[in-house]
Amino acid sequence: PPGRKVLIVYAHQEPNSLNGSLKRVAVEELSKQGCSVTVSDLYAMQFEPRATRNDIVGCLQNSEEFNYGVETREAYKRGCLSNDLIEEQKKVQEADLLIFQFPLYWFSMPAIMKGWMDRVLVQGFAHEFPNCYDSGLLKNKLALFSFTTGGSKEMYAKGGISGDIRYVLWPMQHGIMHFCGVKVLAPHICFAPEYVSEEKRKEMLIAWAKRLKTLWKEEPINCSPEWYFK
Amino acid sequence: PPGRKVLIVYAHQEPNSLNGSLKRVAVEELSKQGCSVTVSDLYAMQFEPRATRNDIVGCLQNSEEFNYGVETREAYKRGCLSNDLIEEQKKVQEADLLIFQFPLYWFSMPAIMKGWMDRVLVQGFAHEFPNCYDSGLLKNKLALFSFTTGGSKEMYAKGGISGDIRYVLWPMQHGIMHFCGVKVLAPHICFAPEYVSEEKRKEMLIAWAKRLKTLWKEEPINCSPEWYFK
Repeated sequence: PPGRKVLIVYAHQEPNSLNGSLKRVAVEELSKQGCSVTVSDLYAMQFEPRATRNDIVGCLQNSEEFNYGVETREAYKRGCLSNDLIEEQKKVQEADLLIFQFPLYWFSMPAIMKGWMDRVLVQGFAHEFPNCYDSGLLKNKLALFSFTTGGSKEMYAKGGISGDIRYVLWPMQHGIMHFCGVKVLAPHICFAPEYVSEEKRKEMLIAWAKRLKTLWKEEPINCSPEWYFK
Repeated sequence: PPGRKVLIVYAHQEPNSLNGSLKRVAVEELSKQGCSVTVSDLYAMQFEPRATRNDIVGCLQNSEEFNYGVETREAYKRGCLSNDLIEEQKKVQEADLLIFQFPLYWFSMPAIMKGWMDRVLVQGFAHEFPNCYDSGLLKNKLALFSFTTGGSKEMYAKGGISGDIRYVLWPMQHGIMHFCGVKVLAPHICFAPEYVSEEKRKEMLIAWAKRLKTLWKEEPINCSPEWYFK
């Protein structure tokens, strides 16, 4: 609906890939609905995935023994995180919905996107004990993992050689998003697009656009072990 | 035993951390046994986690539409991968045992280590359909994930708020190592070292050294959904 803000965190090297097209479809469809859409195109930004001392501007609390979690939490409080992190945090803060668009690499997201999670979701900003899981600091936001796979739907079925795709979703949906209080919409998965026809790939884009039309009416999934491991 | 080769892939920014100490303990104990130990200290190496066109030296097969998987597979065949990848692949090829030492970040490994997986385990080198899982190209090797957590053992118990730690291991042990044919030893987990006494942390180092003394007699775990999700 008009006025809703969406951040698409996108990790593919090639604009002409299916991931690139899925991202464009989302920008177009959501903009058409009157949403304001921002894209963090991680490869184009040459986003830094490594969690290092460079993420803190100025002095450390303890330069004898560098503790990334402690130092970034303190730097967040003092407003001393590096600019690229402050920029991403602003985008997250403003967003009602986060869409993560990527090709599945090794049962997870590509390192460049994992680095976005590692570096942007700083303690104090995204969570602060005991404000985690249902009371995480990013509550009232939604997230959706949209990705392509190399393996087929059959490989990722329960009993399939790669196991139920739900198992793969657990660290991302529960361990990251739910931990920060974000409610999670059902994932959007395009299985093995490299092994289907151009026609089928077009259908995948149409299906995504169609889902987006009624996305705001969807209920979040139940982010519990029962959902994942039933 | 004398002559065995071990590669420790290590991801912590601070040598004086518990992860740093765990790494040193492993180097010392395994060297004492007569093993030859190599360490890839990813932060010290400023290891590149991003999977980009720079990983291929020279021309691409298809520069119109960059496909990382296809291009790195071809570059591997032609010997045209970037030098840092060739170096890491040599270390993997020579190793009998891979130890991954890291702090758990967001239910997974830090992005810098995920980048090592994304970039080093190239198709043709580590797997080549149908040579995956039990017939993966790195069979006859062992791997062990050794890591520290922020959350307590209780949080990572079955029924705990973060779910069974086994669920977290699935993508790493099954999705990556088992996929490449590597047999997996039981993980080594130090829970919440930041919240225990110096004395307890010393006990964690002693326990790791003790385990390493009889490591070569251990049987690999059963890398199946039944093991993880029982």
